[in-house]
Amino acid sequence: MAYDQQMSEIRIAAFAGSLRRLSFNRGLLRASQELCPSGMAIEIVDLDGLPVYNMDLESDLPPAVRQFKDRISSADGILIATPEHNHSFPGVLKNAIDWASRPYNDRSLDHKAVILQSASTGYMGGIRAQIQLRPVLAYFEMKQMQFPEVVVGNAKQKFDESSNLVDSESRDRIVKQLEKFKLFIKSFSE
Amino acid sequence: MAYDQQMSEIRIAAFAGSLRRLSFNRGLLRASQELCPSGMAIEIVDLDGLPVYNMDLESDLPPAVRQFKDRISSADGILIATPEHNHSFPGVLKNAIDWASRPYNDRSLDHKAVILQSASTGYMGGIRAQIQLRPVLAYFEMKQMQFPEVVVGNAKQKFDESSNLVDSESRDRIVKQLEKFKLFIKSFSE
Amino acid sequence: MAYDQQMSEIRIAAFAGSLRRLSFNRGLLRASQELCPSGMAIEIVDLDGLPVYNMDLESDLPPAVRQFKDRISSADGILIATPEHNHSFPGVLKNAIDWASRPYNDRSLDHKAVILQSASTGYMGGIRAQIQLRPVLAYFEMKQMQFPEVVVGNAKQKFDESSNLVDSESRDRIVKQLEKFKLFIKSFSE
Amino acid sequence: MAYDQQMSEIRIAAFAGSLRRLSFNRGLLRASQELCPSGMAIEIVDLDGLPVYNMDLESDLPPAVRQFKDRISSADGILIATPEHNHSFPGVLKNAIDWASRPYNDRSLDHKAVILQSASTGYMGGIRAQIQLRPVLAYFEMKQMQFPEVVVGNAKQKFDESSNLVDSESRDRIVKQLEKFKLFIKSFSE
Repeated sequence: MAYDQQMSEIRIAAFAGSLRRLSFNRGLLRASQELCPSGMAIEIVDLDGLPVYNMDLESDLPPAVRQFKDRISSADGILIATPEHNHSFPGVLKNAIDWASRPYNDRSLDHKAVILQSASTGYMGGIRAQIQLRPVLAYFEMKQMQFPEVVVGNAKQKFDESSNLVDSESRDRIVKQLEKFKLFIKSFSE
Repeated sequence: MAYDQQMSEIRIAAFAGSLRRLSFNRGLLRASQELCPSGMAIEIVDLDGLPVYNMDLESDLPPAVRQFKDRISSADGILIATPEHNHSFPGVLKNAIDWASRPYNDRSLDHKAVILQSASTGYMGGIRAQIQLRPVLAYFEMKQMQFPEVVVGNAKQKFDESSNLVDSESRDRIVKQLEKFKLFIKSFSE
Repeated sequence: MAYDQQMSEIRIAAFAGSLRRLSFNRGLLRASQELCPSGMAIEIVDLDGLPVYNMDLESDLPPAVRQFKDRISSADGILIATPEHNHSFPGVLKNAIDWASRPYNDRSLDHKAVILQSASTGYMGGIRAQIQLRPVLAYFEMKQMQFPEVVVGNAKQKFDESSNLVDSESRDRIVKQLEKFKLFIKSFSE
Repeated sequence: MAYDQQMSEIRIAAFAGSLRRLSFNRGLLRASQELCPSGMAIEIVDLDGLPVYNMDLESDLPPAVRQFKDRISSADGILIATPEHNHSFPGVLKNAIDWASRPYNDRSLDHKAVILQSASTGYMGGIRAQIQLRPVLAYFEMKQMQFPEVVVGNAKQKFDESSNLVDSESRDRIVKQLEKFKLFIKSFSE
């Protein structure tokens, strides 16, 4: 029983487009982990060790890249939390995505279900990062669930001093997003 | 038997973002109709009669809008052929999409499978229209099949004087796209 | 004196991507007209009479198109107020822009200075329409002034029942935007 | 005299969104350097030493970042050569741009004139990287010169085995682009 349940648990790989220690977007992932519905598990994958992408390194993938790709590849769904830098997604995030897509015969994101979250100190909450990311996700033919949106503006008032999400409305949104994502993923696997 | 087969045929609604009589993109749709694999049917929906969108008209939808929405809503998949105007999709096309999305409780595109085609006289073949359209399709949570791409540049050399697609390589691409689209749609309905 | 002043007045052509009678975005343009700094005049150009773009009509431009293009072409700067429809700019707006860009030897927007405003009932205030529009404006090599941004979310609380902008913070933003736009335009003409 | 001329020379800082040793886009920059018109000089700035962006490092900028920013800040214009990765600009490039924009009071790209080039092995030549980059450049209120476009598709046939650009049509395009860019920059400084 326990074994079967284990086997059928939906596994989500989550990463945030920020290396900052007190990143709000990493805080979103921790909150998602706490609020994750039963039957689903969220594993946070840090981007810290990833080098800047260089095609010349593909013949002998750096271990951090190999590990990142393995954790992404084996997941049933992807959760990306992204800050907005200069009206788009951060280089940090795109760099990780570029590694995930390489080499050509070892693409780690293709066809997976995906949801986005974002937080920022401005009132827009990083929405421009999300919209700029859509064509990239479409390129991988990822299954994009759009609603409910998790977009947390004015982050300084919604996270505590350790960057933990304390805003109850935002936490409710995450619960709703994750519950729907669970059904969304199941709808493709049945 | 014949009846059952009829019932299980996949129905595609197709529209082109151009009103020009000799539009290359309408030519792509006619070619798609000719080349459509068995078990799938493509109905071309003209945008000619659609007025410019005005929310004030929603309470009493113009008949052309009603008809357009009905033909879209009842389809199993959507094929959009789009020229590129000013590095994006044409207003003509977005106007039709805006009508399709309204009123709020009668959205005609949500969750449907979708493929894109484009043709242009330039060598880029309208690719910027396609990429700009991706976030809009994601907003509707449409199932975006990306590959194989149908992007026909240098259109004047690939269509005849009646804007019929005569380029065999492009026709082959359409065949491959439609065959994969058939499987793509089936994968969601089984 | 008065004559010279008249001659040196900066002329802005403004249009809104909505035909709705009580459009919030048309309300933004009326507020901009009221709040326009001295030495600058804003003329609102309605899009109501514009047909849906059709290249076949270019050989004999519809009078409404001719008039629209003339008023745009003669302006020193452009102000566009845009709602957000389906995570992008409305078809209504792109249709007007497509007409402005045609025929090929009579392009009405090229190289002009431009600012954007947007309003929406949602909290995002139409920002996705603005960001999707940027590549189109870049294609025309328009001089894009980005800040201060005028993005009015939760419009129902900021406009009165006649869609006049009554929110003082938003009105202040418009004043600041227009004053900076005046200097921005002058910086190119000196 | 020579000194005065030297002083009035237009200085372009150029960087490519690729670290690959035989990068085609770095090849575009070398060709641009060779083909640079008199009165203008192009300095190629390598991105090799830049770490992945981390806000925690801003208080004590890494030397490679400091050097990168200084060379960008002092330039009269910017030339960016960008590959296309996954239908957008590479993380490598966005990472450099993110560093250029930070910290808040030391933004290195704002208001500068800018041109883009791209090369790729596919027939699209990286055009999707360019179009995705436009809103980012608009955010910095950069002066975007769009034409003539330098977009080199099918790169393997247009560069030699050392990734030097040998295609004469592409070289001619670069000459035209740089000559117009020189006039473009002058038009803002007179």
